[in-house]
Amino acid sequence: MTAPADPSHRPLRYAMVGGGQGAFIGAVHRHALALDGQAQLVAGALSSTPEKARASGRALGLAEGRNHADWQALLADELQRPAHERVDFVVIVTPNHVHFPVAQAFVQAGFHVVCDKPLVHSSEQAQALVEAVARQGTVFGVTYNYSGYPMVRQARDMVRAGELGTVRKVVVEYTQGWLATALEGEGNKQAGWRTDPARSGLAGAIGDIGSHAENLVATVTGLQIESLCADLGALVPGRALDDDASLLLRFKGGARGVLLASQISTGKENDLRLRVSGTRGTLEWRQEQPSELRHWPLDGPLRVLTRGAPWLSPSAQRASRIPAGHPEGFIEAFANVYAGVIADIRAHQAGHAADPLAADYPRVEDGARGVRFIERTVASAASAQKWTPFEG
Amino acid sequence: MTAPADPSHRPLRYAMVGGGQGAFIGAVHRHALALDGQAQLVAGALSSTPEKARASGRALGLAEGRNHADWQALLADELQRPAHERVDFVVIVTPNHVHFPVAQAFVQAGFHVVCDKPLVHSSEQAQALVEAVARQGTVFGVTYNYSGYPMVRQARDMVRAGELGTVRKVVVEYTQGWLATALEGEGNKQAGWRTDPARSGLAGAIGDIGSHAENLVATVTGLQIESLCADLGALVPGRALDDDASLLLRFKGGARGVLLASQISTGKENDLRLRVSGTRGTLEWRQEQPSELRHWPLDGPLRVLTRGAPWLSPSAQRASRIPAGHPEGFIEAFANVYAGVIADIRAHQAGHAADPLAADYPRVEDGARGVRFIERTVASAASAQKWTPFEG
Amino acid sequence: MTAPADPSHRPLRYAMVGGGQGAFIGAVHRHALALDGQAQLVAGALSSTPEKARASGRALGLAEGRNHADWQALLADELQRPAHERVDFVVIVTPNHVHFPVAQAFVQAGFHVVCDKPLVHSSEQAQALVEAVARQGTVFGVTYNYSGYPMVRQARDMVRAGELGTVRKVVVEYTQGWLATALEGEGNKQAGWRTDPARSGLAGAIGDIGSHAENLVATVTGLQIESLCADLGALVPGRALDDDASLLLRFKGGARGVLLASQISTGKENDLRLRVSGTRGTLEWRQEQPSELRHWPLDGPLRVLTRGAPWLSPSAQRASRIPAGHPEGFIEAFANVYAGVIADIRAHQAGHAADPLAADYPRVEDGARGVRFIERTVASAASAQKWTPFEG
Amino acid sequence: MTAPADPSHRPLRYAMVGGGQGAFIGAVHRHALALDGQAQLVAGALSSTPEKARASGRALGLAEGRNHADWQALLADELQRPAHERVDFVVIVTPNHVHFPVAQAFVQAGFHVVCDKPLVHSSEQAQALVEAVARQGTVFGVTYNYSGYPMVRQARDMVRAGELGTVRKVVVEYTQGWLATALEGEGNKQAGWRTDPARSGLAGAIGDIGSHAENLVATVTGLQIESLCADLGALVPGRALDDDASLLLRFKGGARGVLLASQISTGKENDLRLRVSGTRGTLEWRQEQPSELRHWPLDGPLRVLTRGAPWLSPSAQRASRIPAGHPEGFIEAFANVYAGVIADIRAHQAGHAADPLAADYPRVEDGARGVRFIERTVASAASAQKWTPFEG
Repeated sequence: MTAPADPSHRPLRYAMVGGGQGAFIGAVHRHALALDGQAQLVAGALSSTPEKARASGRALGLAEGRNHADWQALLADELQRPAHERVDFVVIVTPNHVHFPVAQAFVQAGFHVVCDKPLVHSSEQAQALVEAVARQGTVFGVTYNYSGYPMVRQARDMVRAGELGTVRKVVVEYTQGWLATALEGEGNKQAGWRTDPARSGLAGAIGDIGSHAENLVATVTGLQIESLCADLGALVPGRALDDDASLLLRFKGGARGVLLASQISTGKENDLRLRVSGTRGTLEWRQEQPSELRHWPLDGPLRVLTRGAPWLSPSAQRASRIPAGHPEGFIEAFANVYAGVIADIRAHQAGHAADPLAADYPRVEDGARGVRFIERTVASAASAQKWTPFEG
Repeated sequence: MTAPADPSHRPLRYAMVGGGQGAFIGAVHRHALALDGQAQLVAGALSSTPEKARASGRALGLAEGRNHADWQALLADELQRPAHERVDFVVIVTPNHVHFPVAQAFVQAGFHVVCDKPLVHSSEQAQALVEAVARQGTVFGVTYNYSGYPMVRQARDMVRAGELGTVRKVVVEYTQGWLATALEGEGNKQAGWRTDPARSGLAGAIGDIGSHAENLVATVTGLQIESLCADLGALVPGRALDDDASLLLRFKGGARGVLLASQISTGKENDLRLRVSGTRGTLEWRQEQPSELRHWPLDGPLRVLTRGAPWLSPSAQRASRIPAGHPEGFIEAFANVYAGVIADIRAHQAGHAADPLAADYPRVEDGARGVRFIERTVASAASAQKWTPFEG
Repeated sequence: MTAPADPSHRPLRYAMVGGGQGAFIGAVHRHALALDGQAQLVAGALSSTPEKARASGRALGLAEGRNHADWQALLADELQRPAHERVDFVVIVTPNHVHFPVAQAFVQAGFHVVCDKPLVHSSEQAQALVEAVARQGTVFGVTYNYSGYPMVRQARDMVRAGELGTVRKVVVEYTQGWLATALEGEGNKQAGWRTDPARSGLAGAIGDIGSHAENLVATVTGLQIESLCADLGALVPGRALDDDASLLLRFKGGARGVLLASQISTGKENDLRLRVSGTRGTLEWRQEQPSELRHWPLDGPLRVLTRGAPWLSPSAQRASRIPAGHPEGFIEAFANVYAGVIADIRAHQAGHAADPLAADYPRVEDGARGVRFIERTVASAASAQKWTPFEG
Repeated sequence: MTAPADPSHRPLRYAMVGGGQGAFIGAVHRHALALDGQAQLVAGALSSTPEKARASGRALGLAEGRNHADWQALLADELQRPAHERVDFVVIVTPNHVHFPVAQAFVQAGFHVVCDKPLVHSSEQAQALVEAVARQGTVFGVTYNYSGYPMVRQARDMVRAGELGTVRKVVVEYTQGWLATALEGEGNKQAGWRTDPARSGLAGAIGDIGSHAENLVATVTGLQIESLCADLGALVPGRALDDDASLLLRFKGGARGVLLASQISTGKENDLRLRVSGTRGTLEWRQEQPSELRHWPLDGPLRVLTRGAPWLSPSAQRASRIPAGHPEGFIEAFANVYAGVIADIRAHQAGHAADPLAADYPRVEDGARGVRFIERTVASAASAQKWTPFEG
């Protein structure tokens, strides 16, 4: 269970950029931040359309003076406020193409930032952001939210502790069906920006969900991709970006892998799965039943580890709020990422290093590696050579 | 998805009685109330031990003047506050034996109340409370939280719409294993009060979890139990209250049923399951995989309905926050019950009747029926007659 | 894996009574007997209708002189044949009401017999048969076929070895839906005799499938029922026999149990399940996924044992033909019961005691207990007393 | 259910080459052939070691004169027997390298043949065999046994009937763990020949199990592979042949695919899975739960089709022996392939064309395509070019 809050802890204040009415992921961030009562939304620039930004802010109860028409106004306003009013961190949940300028501006102004994935549009932008964060010494989290599931952390801790022996094979699949029809032609906002190169970037499915898959592999195995071979398809007629991706992976040290990301698998919901096989065992995890982790040891029957059990790793245990058998889900996992970010911000504010067990969240470097992964995947898809090198 | 909040809606203020440090269910109520940002904890009397009550309140950030040593002080303080400060509702999450005096006092003082289950210790208390609520015309919710799962609502709506035809057989099982050993002798607080007749009441497992099972059957089927035949066992040596219960049920209209509640099924977590068979189909739901509802129609293959799908009932759809395939769990279901209570309070405050689709939550009458169910079950267990009548 | 056949072993010869065209279970017996090549059908009286008997025998390739119009002719013919032609055993797969006279006649004539369940119509008949078998010293198997599944044997062996500690609770359910409509009024032969008291006996569902459930409990736990409390319903209007049964059980030594048998659970196929909880663990098995046995130990995560694994009991291991992951099913389990019978017949013929590990099959005593179980269940259902005693 | 046997039908006689003591697959063939009583083993050359061949034949009850030391003797003996004694067909279950000479010899001598997969070692051999069969006009079946599962046939029939619309994506995985350690160095016979290039051919896992996966895709979808991109690994140190294979596939018409075959996924048993997504729906099938076929239509909830249901295709229905819910498995599926071969042989013997619904089995052409698939996969694995063309 999560440790009880320290009574000296006031809830942190945060601002949100993007995430206004009609957005999906902005509301998820707000639910996740509300869940544990550790942060309060106090300011925002919630849409790129000023009127919609204002209306969204009013619906969320923002004070008039902190409900801004654009992020530049938000930044300017925050900078002129006294420290005891200023937000502790900024959450960026805009469409992808807006991530970079907003993130860069707030980092350079010294704010702690949480940004959605994929982080930015190019590895150059990513590198600039990594450097900016390093210069400022601020906290920067990337919401690879699946890393927040307790049983993902359990998997990571088992692999790192050597319970699988040497990892030989990794299979990760992220299968959805919601883009099996040309929704973007029917006014669906989510489909619209995700299939538009101007707003989504180089990549469609591989950016939207493939990057989650890449992060899941990196989180759990710690392996570095050495080279990759990609086949990207835009299988719905008329679509400009990939909606289906298949990759062969080779890792440093000799392990092999396969990564699949599809948004045209009709009827499938959000079927992210990971299988890791090593010399001493295999692990399987599936996002749609996130409380179970299946473990086949070399010398005994399948074990089904479940969230909340006393034999889990400390990291997996502290990522639970309620007892075993009482399902926790997506919002709770998201909140676990935020709990890590908040622990790091509090440590930063208190002037000491964070407890690594507490400050457990994906960093700007993870986001940057994800951007390079997307770039190299797109390059591979365009190449007649089998293997495209990748520097993790 | 839940409707966006009306911007005119300030978050409601609530007080909590019980639920201090070390309690399980109090924290769940607070998470559930925080999730949607519609209510804020502003006052409390969080433990029966004054020092612990204060410490718990401080940890939760209560203002000093609203952090009370006992519920009587809380009540007195609230009554002398102006309306714009006074809490909108009170949440009672104490051990069972304290429910009645606290609930009765706050209802009689005109407060809206949410109380945990089982509601009270006797059908006389229950009846008194039902009458008090009727007199006051206030809102009174009972946190039979499993009724808040979207797929439970879908099941209910399908049965009520006749999709199963006439219901013939109901099987409900609530299987746990956490009391398979004598934890109450090892200082476990949860086990301690649940196995103590003075604090838990007449019943152990049948009160703690059997009452959830009874409510689930009533919620989904609308059937009334006509008579029951119970076998209660205290299977762990030395235990004073039942830890295992098996009942045969007969419903008005001829349907048959079986209700099982066990806390000594070693290793099982929180395995609440329901099966309802009618002339035209069968439904199955399982709490540990709450997003699925299995439906066997008479004339076609098994259908697996999932949370978030567009073909669900309006009630099931509005009980979801995030898209299909992104798991929602126990806290979200709990929050759905609270969303119903809050909608009813807001309607009450606005002076109009609530939208029934919104004000969807278990009432004081459901809680009272649950208390009579426990009483009749205990009576049946002590009887040599097969059937004990029950007036639903 | 099954031991290789001893080359000195000729296939046994068998005769079948009942099981002609249109019968379900007769064909299953023949498939099961064919599977391992240890027995050959050489004679029969395959139907109570002489013409149909003959036609069925011709379709199965019986020689003209051994294809009889009735079982009396079969018996007479066998008795006058020389030993090297005579059948080694007789298989009785008629409707229930014919079991007794046929079985009694062949036993008294010195034949080894295999008879379907429920064994006979009354405990008096059962007792007479038990005594006849004892007098003759012949082999008599009852095809409680579910006892032949490898993972049922594994469950039995784990319980007997104490891996669950002391058993406290047993829940067995056998859920079907095929009689949810009045098929017997539509010319369905299977439904016809099963719902007809003249041919099926005292009981419907409790006899047809409840007796399998009773045997499964006895096989796995070895517990003896001390008293029972039954509710039997004929829920399809106009049906003369029960199609739905619910029982509370108390076992010698204090364990509690519940047994459900339903044939009106619309859409369900053949969902036989067993859960056994003891002080040290819980086991669950489900016939529709027969290769898995779920084991919750007190002090560790769920283990999923699978057929074919090297860590299974010797008895479970020898009941497999092919490697793990290559599904074996109903016919294979049936064949395992026959393998036990055949091992016992071969030992009998060789004049020595059988290897108990090999001669693993339900005996006439198990069949007789099943008949008493049905009788007492019907008596309980008619009684206003809660508990009806049962002498296992 | 399978049609009742025609009474004019004597069981066919067959000879087996290979499959002696210690072999796994030979016994499976014999069980499958025994199951329905349509064929009898009467002759054999059961091992490449003469003494072992003879001992194996004696254990199986072969007459002395038909129990041969090698396949050449078997062939010579059969040719000199009169038609009413001669075998109707020959089953070849030797290690792979022996398939070609035996199959070619028996085909050229006019025998019907069933041969295990992969068919032969090279596409030249495969082509020669295809031509020989065409010249002789004999029946030649290849035991791609997974094609015999009823729900695989249902999947095929649904795809062919357009229920998925246009197929866009195919994912097939065959995951085992039994070669995760170097069993071949520990005297394991199965591991020994499968990892030995001299006996297994060019390929390890891709030949042994990848060829099943290729056949499953071809059977269900009818799609032709246009090009492929393979990564083959020998991940257990010291192994000469691949034990892990990952392929990207492109099909004629634009569909994409992924094929995985691994024998080093520690702890996994025989996890063959197929997912096919089209414009109108998705199908999933899993060999370890073969009675279920999951179908996500575009416009409604998941449907779980099960073996034995009346709404299945005629082909799927006739591949069942027993009612729904009574599990059938691997041997039954195998027997379904044999039922197709036998129907074709009987039609051939009767001088008429076979009923296509009955003569449903993989042909020599399917086996030949499988051999080319293995060759091109090995070629691709050695190539730096991404795509290696494939002429289906």
